[in-house]
Amino acid sequence: MAAGNLPVSGARLWDSLMEFARIGATPRGGCNRQTLTELDGEARALLRRYAEAAGATLTLDRLGNMALTRPGRDPGRKPVAIGSHLDTQPTGGKFDGVLGVLAGLEVLRALHEAGVETEAPVTLINWTNEEGARFSPPMMGSGAAMGIFTEAEVLAKTDSAGARFGAELARIGWQGSADPAGLQELGAYFELHIEQGPVLEREGKDVGVVTHALAQHWFDVTVTGADAHGGSAMAGRRDALMAAAELALTIEGATILAGARATIGRMTLHPDSRNVVPGRVWFSLDTRHDHEDKLAELADKLRAEAAGITARRGVEIALEDFWISPATPFDATLAERLRQSARARGVPFMDMPTAIGHDAVYVARKVPSVMIFVPCHGGLSHNEEESITPGWAEAGLLVLADAVVATAGIARD
Amino acid sequence: MAAGNLPVSGARLWDSLMEFARIGATPRGGCNRQTLTELDGEARALLRRYAEAAGATLTLDRLGNMALTRPGRDPGRKPVAIGSHLDTQPTGGKFDGVLGVLAGLEVLRALHEAGVETEAPVTLINWTNEEGARFSPPMMGSGAAMGIFTEAEVLAKTDSAGARFGAELARIGWQGSADPAGLQELGAYFELHIEQGPVLEREGKDVGVVTHALAQHWFDVTVTGADAHGGSAMAGRRDALMAAAELALTIEGATILAGARATIGRMTLHPDSRNVVPGRVWFSLDTRHDHEDKLAELADKLRAEAAGITARRGVEIALEDFWISPATPFDATLAERLRQSARARGVPFMDMPTAIGHDAVYVARKVPSVMIFVPCHGGLSHNEEESITPGWAEAGLLVLADAVVATAGIARD
Repeated sequence: MAAGNLPVSGARLWDSLMEFARIGATPRGGCNRQTLTELDGEARALLRRYAEAAGATLTLDRLGNMALTRPGRDPGRKPVAIGSHLDTQPTGGKFDGVLGVLAGLEVLRALHEAGVETEAPVTLINWTNEEGARFSPPMMGSGAAMGIFTEAEVLAKTDSAGARFGAELARIGWQGSADPAGLQELGAYFELHIEQGPVLEREGKDVGVVTHALAQHWFDVTVTGADAHGGSAMAGRRDALMAAAELALTIEGATILAGARATIGRMTLHPDSRNVVPGRVWFSLDTRHDHEDKLAELADKLRAEAAGITARRGVEIALEDFWISPATPFDATLAERLRQSARARGVPFMDMPTAIGHDAVYVARKVPSVMIFVPCHGGLSHNEEESITPGWAEAGLLVLADAVVATAGIARD
Repeated sequence: MAAGNLPVSGARLWDSLMEFARIGATPRGGCNRQTLTELDGEARALLRRYAEAAGATLTLDRLGNMALTRPGRDPGRKPVAIGSHLDTQPTGGKFDGVLGVLAGLEVLRALHEAGVETEAPVTLINWTNEEGARFSPPMMGSGAAMGIFTEAEVLAKTDSAGARFGAELARIGWQGSADPAGLQELGAYFELHIEQGPVLEREGKDVGVVTHALAQHWFDVTVTGADAHGGSAMAGRRDALMAAAELALTIEGATILAGARATIGRMTLHPDSRNVVPGRVWFSLDTRHDHEDKLAELADKLRAEAAGITARRGVEIALEDFWISPATPFDATLAERLRQSARARGVPFMDMPTAIGHDAVYVARKVPSVMIFVPCHGGLSHNEEESITPGWAEAGLLVLADAVVATAGIARD
């Protein structure tokens, strides 16, 4: 059979999504299936059962990453992997993560039912703790597998109740013996995910071919003025909050001009009293751009603007680096394969970056990787009201399936 | 003897200030003598000893307010009082509060040494817990005496360590039996205080005749937008923090135009995560003006400006009243008496409001009251570096003493 003809079923994928959504279903239509809970274990068991029924075999590593592999004909070829995650935010939706896992399951099922033998093995991966909601940081399973975190530090993480990652993994019965670094030995990695942004819906495209992850530059910003009594005259104040407000709007303006993204997500005022002019304000700043050189230019611009505010308002402003992540390119060959699949299936698509971290961004450091986005209504995610259409899910599935089959190769004799 | 000739000593006042500053002295030259601590008790005992040596008798009320009264000739006349507070902030200075108490002590001493008999009694008052640093709110002793707080609620207040006001007052041995409301029976009330602002120093005046306390209008402001991922595009965001920043600068501008004062002293962001665009921001807003009608106009202006931001940014803004305090006029006759005293002594003075709460603002609700300000360097207060010159202290003392004597009257036979 030719690529493009694998008889995947969008309807069966949708049924699976609804079935998994019951594991941790919330009254408001969302899903609360946090990592290393009983519910996570339940979802893992169901995935294993279905994947084994489709001819796959489980390899479980010491961090709970599940690799469900359907063998290929050529033992010398590395597996072509499809991955994402089954864990959710505490008030998460039914699609973030699980769509990518269940689309991969549907590919395994279709291959199995059609009796297709691929040249390379096809592996479905469920990464442990992508969300980072219960144990921070996010993308822990893929990060440790790709050498960004050590296994020991991941196992030692604790949740807000003091429970240890390693103990919880063992408790739910999903700690295996395989070396997580074994997952670096993949031939290719595909990840289908909802966009978690409004672009595809607004542009009327059913699929986004994700070409790269944005560069990120996070800052700690401290504005230092002078405390003053709330009754003091406005003239002569060195109000750190007003300076921070001016800086925030300057950041917003410069960011829009630069085609970048900027978020001030946290802010604290000192001394934090209703009738005291704040002498010090700290805030976090998260900036992102397609290109790290443009992001560096934005940082230079912000430092220059901050100097102007410093001079005008008699305050000091420190912009300190908190975290810098370069732009991560995805594999150009795999991206082109997705475009070919979309064209062949008549699926409207566009190229786009991901501005959000995903397991694929870590996997891409070791394995040729690519992502496929499908729209979600209003860009809403990490929210019980997260929603997509069955048509969008199917479009993503078709493009994924064809590209995976084309990459794994069909045995011809 | 005529008013204006009472031989008060600026040098002795200064010595007393330095002596009391040793009780709670901090390594950096300030004073930490928080209310109802052992150190507070030590300062109270010293004050009592000195005032009794100057012919005064202590009346101690159930909230620890000390009234040290030197009798007058006419038993039918209500006392003329001089008051302030001995307690300090945790990192307070040597002058806030204590200057007013020790200037009153100097008046008692001078009357005693000169053998002057006044018509009305002269009473020196040390109010309990003016600062509000250990037990909130501030001005608790004067507030309860004047009927703003109940005695029971004051006694039940706890500090951050859980210690009760009533228990601490008893522990340091300064709970009396007098009814605090007895202090409403004063004929006049004078309070000398450092300005805690930069105006007098800048204007080159040694004394401020305080004609009124500003009107205050405090708000809770809530800006509601929508959470979004830090990776989402700038277009389409409904960023509550950026809207709050715009509102803050609008408030600053409108406040300056209105000749008012505005302080945003507290702010919280939700969900308070580095990579999430805040969907909700709350902040406190403290506005003050000489006239409550102008303050109401400012509030109307801010609501109108908020509506514009709401429309442009797709957010909702709620400005809710938190606390409203009318402008408090001080007694015009007493203020004129201060001006006469300043002119007679050749002390450069100006009229001014207080933008800051003082015991006098509560006392003025029941008793004809007035305040005298003297400069402090750089307007700095609630700070270990708070400083004044001996000349400023003496100028305030002279104007106070003469006005008190003129009000109490000299016995003539």
